[in-house]
Amino acid sequence: MSRSRLGPNRYGKAETHVVRVTRDGDVHHIRDLTVSVALSGAMEAVHLTGDNSAVLTTDTQKNTVFAFARKHGVDSPEGFGLLLARHFVGSQPSVDHARVSVEEHLWDRIGAGPHSFVRRGGETRTALIHHDATATHVVSGIRDLVVLNSTDSEFWGYVKDEYTTLPETRDRILATEVTAQWRHTSAEADWEGTYPEARRHLLEAFAGTYSLSLQQTLYAMGDRLLDGLPEVCEVRLSLPNRHHFTVDLEPFGLDNDNEVFYAADRPYGLIEGAVVRDGAPDAGAAWT
Amino acid sequence: MSRSRLGPNRYGKAETHVVRVTRDGDVHHIRDLTVSVALSGAMEAVHLTGDNSAVLTTDTQKNTVFAFARKHGVDSPEGFGLLLARHFVGSQPSVDHARVSVEEHLWDRIGAGPHSFVRRGGETRTALIHHDATATHVVSGIRDLVVLNSTDSEFWGYVKDEYTTLPETRDRILATEVTAQWRHTSAEADWEGTYPEARRHLLEAFAGTYSLSLQQTLYAMGDRLLDGLPEVCEVRLSLPNRHHFTVDLEPFGLDNDNEVFYAADRPYGLIEGAVVRDGAPDAGAAWT
Amino acid sequence: MSRSRLGPNRYGKAETHVVRVTRDGDVHHIRDLTVSVALSGAMEAVHLTGDNSAVLTTDTQKNTVFAFARKHGVDSPEGFGLLLARHFVGSQPSVDHARVSVEEHLWDRIGAGPHSFVRRGGETRTALIHHDATATHVVSGIRDLVVLNSTDSEFWGYVKDEYTTLPETRDRILATEVTAQWRHTSAEADWEGTYPEARRHLLEAFAGTYSLSLQQTLYAMGDRLLDGLPEVCEVRLSLPNRHHFTVDLEPFGLDNDNEVFYAADRPYGLIEGAVVRDGAPDAGAAWT
Amino acid sequence: MSRSRLGPNRYGKAETHVVRVTRDGDVHHIRDLTVSVALSGAMEAVHLTGDNSAVLTTDTQKNTVFAFARKHGVDSPEGFGLLLARHFVGSQPSVDHARVSVEEHLWDRIGAGPHSFVRRGGETRTALIHHDATATHVVSGIRDLVVLNSTDSEFWGYVKDEYTTLPETRDRILATEVTAQWRHTSAEADWEGTYPEARRHLLEAFAGTYSLSLQQTLYAMGDRLLDGLPEVCEVRLSLPNRHHFTVDLEPFGLDNDNEVFYAADRPYGLIEGAVVRDGAPDAGAAWT
Repeated sequence: MSRSRLGPNRYGKAETHVVRVTRDGDVHHIRDLTVSVALSGAMEAVHLTGDNSAVLTTDTQKNTVFAFARKHGVDSPEGFGLLLARHFVGSQPSVDHARVSVEEHLWDRIGAGPHSFVRRGGETRTALIHHDATATHVVSGIRDLVVLNSTDSEFWGYVKDEYTTLPETRDRILATEVTAQWRHTSAEADWEGTYPEARRHLLEAFAGTYSLSLQQTLYAMGDRLLDGLPEVCEVRLSLPNRHHFTVDLEPFGLDNDNEVFYAADRPYGLIEGAVVRDGAPDAGAAWT
Repeated sequence: MSRSRLGPNRYGKAETHVVRVTRDGDVHHIRDLTVSVALSGAMEAVHLTGDNSAVLTTDTQKNTVFAFARKHGVDSPEGFGLLLARHFVGSQPSVDHARVSVEEHLWDRIGAGPHSFVRRGGETRTALIHHDATATHVVSGIRDLVVLNSTDSEFWGYVKDEYTTLPETRDRILATEVTAQWRHTSAEADWEGTYPEARRHLLEAFAGTYSLSLQQTLYAMGDRLLDGLPEVCEVRLSLPNRHHFTVDLEPFGLDNDNEVFYAADRPYGLIEGAVVRDGAPDAGAAWT
Repeated sequence: MSRSRLGPNRYGKAETHVVRVTRDGDVHHIRDLTVSVALSGAMEAVHLTGDNSAVLTTDTQKNTVFAFARKHGVDSPEGFGLLLARHFVGSQPSVDHARVSVEEHLWDRIGAGPHSFVRRGGETRTALIHHDATATHVVSGIRDLVVLNSTDSEFWGYVKDEYTTLPETRDRILATEVTAQWRHTSAEADWEGTYPEARRHLLEAFAGTYSLSLQQTLYAMGDRLLDGLPEVCEVRLSLPNRHHFTVDLEPFGLDNDNEVFYAADRPYGLIEGAVVRDGAPDAGAAWT
Repeated sequence: MSRSRLGPNRYGKAETHVVRVTRDGDVHHIRDLTVSVALSGAMEAVHLTGDNSAVLTTDTQKNTVFAFARKHGVDSPEGFGLLLARHFVGSQPSVDHARVSVEEHLWDRIGAGPHSFVRRGGETRTALIHHDATATHVVSGIRDLVVLNSTDSEFWGYVKDEYTTLPETRDRILATEVTAQWRHTSAEADWEGTYPEARRHLLEAFAGTYSLSLQQTLYAMGDRLLDGLPEVCEVRLSLPNRHHFTVDLEPFGLDNDNEVFYAADRPYGLIEGAVVRDGAPDAGAAWT
C-alpha cells in the first residue's frame, strides 16, 4: 500500500574526459572534452525493486563516448553531443530522453609545432543537448571568461531603505566572470563558426557598453549576441559581480582616485537574466 | 524597434557569511551561515536603460542579513531564510519574489568548554526558501554526507548492448556523497527537530537497504524520509556513484576477494531522482 | 661542454587512493588512504639522456601500494608508509631515499551496522615517512581541523607604525584551521594510540588557552602535545587566522556586542611555528 | 623549568588581492596581484607569554601592501615584492627576515579598448622574495601552464620488478602542468623582459624535445632556460604527469592507433627537479 511515487529522475555517467587526436600527416589536431550523459525514461522498476533490466549502465555510456570519438571523430562539442543523444534515444527502448553536456577545454599550438599544444585558459566552451521523440534542443555556451572595465561604469539612483549604506559612484571598476549560454533555433547550425562569433560579440558588448548597472551590461551582451547571430533565439547570462573596492588610503596620507582596489571574493552580487528573441520557439527542456 | 525582450531574471547578494553568537551567561551558542539572496520583479528599466530606481542593491541585501541576525537571531536556517524572504517581498514594491538559500556549517563543542567549538565536517545543512504573494515554499536539505556500504550491494541484470563490457557483480562496495532535499507541505514546522530526524532516516535507509542498484537505494532513502516525516511531501536526491573498483592483483600472485579497492574520482555515475508523496501540493518554484 | 648540472630531484606516484576492507566475520573494518610516493637516487642518466634503466616507474609504485595493502593490510598510516618506504629503498639499487606521504580519510560506523559507514569530516589524519640508509623519520599529523573560541581572546599591545589602523581589542573570536604535525623520536611507536591523544591535546590546549595572540595559542598547542606524548620530539603548526570581524550595525540603530560577525576568506593572517623538545634528535629530511 | 623551545617560525598576511590601475590619459594599465607576506625575527615573547610588543600585525602588513601600490605603483611582481621585503626588514627592529610571495594574474586588452580587459588564463606569473641583512634572493616563476605533445614521446627501458605491469611504448601523449621557478643571480634584473623570455624558452624546450621520459623533458626545459637567460643561476620544475591513457576499443571492434585517450586525474606521476648553473651562488633561504 504505497503512499509515494517516483518523481522526476535521470541517471548517467558524468565527466568522462576524452581527448581525441586526429593526424593530418605530421600535423595533429586535438579535441579535449568532458562529457556528461543523463538519461531518463520509464524507470519505476529499478527504483522500486532494483530490477535493472531497463538500465543502460553508466559504464556503457562511458564506453559509448570513447567509441564514438573513435568512429565519428569530434567535429564540434554540439555535433558530438547530438550524435550521442540521438544514439541513446534511438537505440534504447527504455530511454525516452537524453541530456548530453559537453565542456571543451581549448588548446593553442606552441609556435609552428605540428603536434605541440598549450592549453588556453580563460574560457571553457560548453554545449548542452536535449533530445527526445518530440524535440531536439542545442544550447551552446562559454564560461570562465573573466572581464573587467577599469572605468565607464557608474552605479547610482538605486533604492535607499533603512539598511542602505552604499555610497553612489560615478566611476568604478566593473568586473565579472561570464557564463553565457545561447539557445539555437535549429539543431543544425555552423557550430564551429558560431562559437568565436558569440565570444567576440560578448566581449565587444561588455567593453563597449557604458554601464549604469551590471544588469544593463548583461542585457547589452545578450542583445548583441542575438543581433549578430540570427540562428540564436535566446541568451542566458550569469554574471557574478567581482567587486573591486577602492581602498581607503587616507589614514596613510594618500589619496586614491580609483588607482588601488581590493578585489573581494565573497560575498558577491550575482546577476542572472535572459534575453529572448521575439518569436523564439518554446524552450521546452532546453535549459534543464 | 526592438526584436528582443527580457526573459527570466533575478539578482542578489550571494554567499554572505554570517556567524551569530548568543551568550547564555558563560555558555555561548553559535550559528554559522552562508546566505544567498536572489530577488525578482519588474526589472525591465534597469536592464534596458540602466535605470536603478527599482533596484535594492546587493550591498543592502547583505546589510539586511547582518542586521536581521542581530535583531532576530537565528533560530534555524529555515526560519532565518523565511524572515529575510518575507522582508524583501513585504518591504520592497519592486520585489515580487524572493529566493533565499542558506547553508549552515555545523559546530560541536570541544569537551565541556562553554565557548569552544570544533567544526563538524561531513555534512552541511541547507535551506531553500521561495516566497511571493501567492506561495511560500520551504525546502530543507543536507549535503556533503559521504556514506559507504562495504557489502550488501549487487549489480546485474542490466541492458547489454554492443558497448557493454561491465561484468555483473553479486558483491561490491556502494558509496555515494548524499545531497538530499526535502520539501515541506507547510511553511511552518519544527525545523530544528526535523533536521536530525531526516539525517537519521537517510543514514538508516542507506545502511539498511540491501541494494541491487543505486536507484533502488535512492528510492528507499526518499521513501523512508517521507515515512518518518509526515510534514514532508517530496524528497529529491542526487547521488554520485563513488566507484570503488576491485584492483586486479593477479599479476602479483595475489587474490582480491573485495579487500583492496581503487577509489576513482572521474568519471562517475550520477543518479538523481525524486520521491513524491501522494497528494503532494504543487511544487511551484520550490526547486528552482 | 656542460655548464649546468642536475640539482635536487625526486619522482613518484602521487595520490593513489586505496581503500582496504578487512572482514572480521560479518563485521567489516575500513582504511581509506591517499598515498604519495617520491623516490630519489642517482638519476643523472634519465635526466640527461632519457635512459630509464634506473627508473622504477610511477605505475609500478602505484601497483606496489595496492599489492602491499593486500599482503600486509593497513595497521596505521605510519606503519603502512614505513613498509612502503623500506621496500622501495631495500629492493631498488637505484633508490637511495624514499618519501611516503599518507592521508587517511576517517569513517564512522552508521549505528550498529557491521558494514555501513559515514565519512567523518572535520579532520584528515596524515603521516609523512622519510627513509634512507642512514635514518628513518616519522611525522604524524592532522589537518582540516577547524576550531573556534567565541571569547577568551584579546589582541593589543602590538607595534604601531604609520600603516597601522587596527584597533586593539579585549574580546574577539579566535578561529583557525589547524594543520599540525608531530615528529617522533623513534620509528617505532603506538601509532594508533598516539593519534587520538594528539588530537585531544590539540583541542584541549586550543580551548583552554586564554589567548593574547594566535602565536601564544600555537605555542600552547605544541607544548601541550609534547607534554602529553613523550615519544614526540617536535611539533609544527600552521594556523591561518580565520578572521571574524564584528559587523558595524550602528547605521541601522543596532549595537553589536560581539554577537554578529562577518567571516572573511581572504586575506588572512598565517601563523607558522615549531615547538621543539630539548634534546630532540636532528630532524634531517623529516620535514621536507 | 622548560623542556621545550620555540623552533622555526614566521607570521604574516596571506593572499592580499590588490589591483592597481594606472591611467595614461584615456589608456589604462592594470596589475592584478595576490601578495603574501611572512616575517620572522626574535619572536619568543609573543609565543611564550602573548606579549605582542614585537608584532607588526598582519593587518598592518595588508595596509602596507595597498599603500605601497599607491605610492610606488607596481612595475613588476619582483620589484613590488622587493620594495615590501626591504621595507619590513628596514623599518621594523623586530623583523630580521621577510619573505614576500607574489602571484600575478594576467590580463589582455579586449580589442583596441583603452580600459577593457579579459583575464588571460593558462598561466600565473609568480615571484618569491627573501630578504634579510645578509642576502636578498629573487625567484621568478610561472604556474598553471598546461602543455601537451601528441607524439614524439616514448617510454621504455625502465626497471621491471615483480610489481611492474606497464607495457613499454614508443609513442604516447606527454602532457604536464608546468610549475617552473628560476632563481636570479642578482636582485637587480629586467624582470619585465625576463618573464616572457623564460616562458618562451620553457614552451619551446617542451615542444622541441623528443622525449624518452618526463625527467629528460624537465632537464631540457631547465637547461634551455639557463641557456637563454644568463642572469638566472638555477631552475626548479615540478611536472605532474597528466596521464593520457589509450582507451581499449577492441571490445567494440575498433582499433585505436593513438586517437582516443582517457585523461586521468589521479593518481599521477610527479617529477620534480632542479637544474643548476655551474658556479651558482648559494641558494640560502631562496626556495623556502
